[in-house]
Amino acid sequence: MEFTSACVVGAGRVGSAIAARLSESLPTRLTGRELETDDAELVVVCVPDRAVHEVAAAIPVGPWIAHTSGARTLDALDPHVRRFSLHPLQTLVRHRGPEQLDGSWAAVSGETPEALAAGFRLADLLRLLPFELDDDARLVYHAAAVMAQSFLVALHWAAAELFEEAGAPPDALLPLMQRTMDNDFELTGPITRGDWETIERHLEVIREQRPELEPMYRALTDMMAAAVAPR
Amino acid sequence: MEFTSACVVGAGRVGSAIAARLSESLPTRLTGRELETDDAELVVVCVPDRAVHEVAAAIPVGPWIAHTSGARTLDALDPHVRRFSLHPLQTLVRHRGPEQLDGSWAAVSGETPEALAAGFRLADLLRLLPFELDDDARLVYHAAAVMAQSFLVALHWAAAELFEEAGAPPDALLPLMQRTMDNDFELTGPITRGDWETIERHLEVIREQRPELEPMYRALTDMMAAAVAPR
Repeated sequence: MEFTSACVVGAGRVGSAIAARLSESLPTRLTGRELETDDAELVVVCVPDRAVHEVAAAIPVGPWIAHTSGARTLDALDPHVRRFSLHPLQTLVRHRGPEQLDGSWAAVSGETPEALAAGFRLADLLRLLPFELDDDARLVYHAAAVMAQSFLVALHWAAAELFEEAGAPPDALLPLMQRTMDNDFELTGPITRGDWETIERHLEVIREQRPELEPMYRALTDMMAAAVAPR
Repeated sequence: MEFTSACVVGAGRVGSAIAARLSESLPTRLTGRELETDDAELVVVCVPDRAVHEVAAAIPVGPWIAHTSGARTLDALDPHVRRFSLHPLQTLVRHRGPEQLDGSWAAVSGETPEALAAGFRLADLLRLLPFELDDDARLVYHAAAVMAQSFLVALHWAAAELFEEAGAPPDALLPLMQRTMDNDFELTGPITRGDWETIERHLEVIREQRPELEPMYRALTDMMAAAVAPR
């Protein structure tokens, strides 16, 4: 399986990084949504989830076509049949380039061995580590990806808010969060000691001072009480 | 302010790391809870929150005394008056040594300039970056520290559970979480695009397949909808 030309549709965060990386190995066109795909052998649709189907349907059937959505299934690419999806499991930002893809993983779904081979080949060209993902499992997979990215942002935001409230420097959270990752997410602190009294006191003070954070605090401690602690 | 000898009470994760670091610069005794503090100029009480008061009350008044609890206020050290608290804002594990303290911050509370100076001196000896924390603000501060450590563990656990459910490799979450931190917690993904339809579909599939994770998912997306997004 080899591609000799590609067209990336969508010049957002994902499309820009993918087009930049592909153009290192083969002629690659990056379009907005003008859909001038020329005669590219591979068209990669990098548009918001809700636009994937409309954009794909407007592309003449013929070349391999892929989307990069984490949540959408392959039928979003109807009526194409030479199709697959490849979702780079990475947070991509505008001020970085294709090096953002290095060392990241990618979820590849396809309905035939040939389609999976095409997806793995694209992962290769992008220097992503591919794994096969059942098309039916995409939504669960993508929910978890949102936990790992957006909820991590949310946690940091909430902790920094409380630090401001307490007069503590939010920067001081960073070595703690980094070490937690470096320690392979080993749990320490009151929950691992079964100190639910301290957790209840936290909840009380959050309810008094920042009540909008209480449901999150409660849901996470409840989840840990049921499932994670005691280890 | 200089200490020439110290006694650390409590040989758990915190006490062990603190005693090891202190013994690099001054004679330091590490005791269990036998409370043989000899004539140490500084006694550092590193016991679980609920034991701080009892342990402190059993130590003869005289030396400087400190506790290392994140949540407890200074009155846990009654009847001592030459007292302060120093909470290393770090996750400490048994298989690492005092180098765990390097580059970490510490919350110091004290009621007098002399007590704060004593706390900052101890931070110095431990090679921690100290900041002053109002004794009344400790509980809010500590709730945030639990978010940054225990909830980060909880998020990773929940995401890894869903990855297993989807047949995706949990290791693939690590570059995503690390990059999210490295990108200074910039939000990407469906929430930043205002794609609440995808979030609702996540909630549906979580409710079907892992209902115990739904409250956490809902609480975090609600919090972000109200407070973080759109940026």
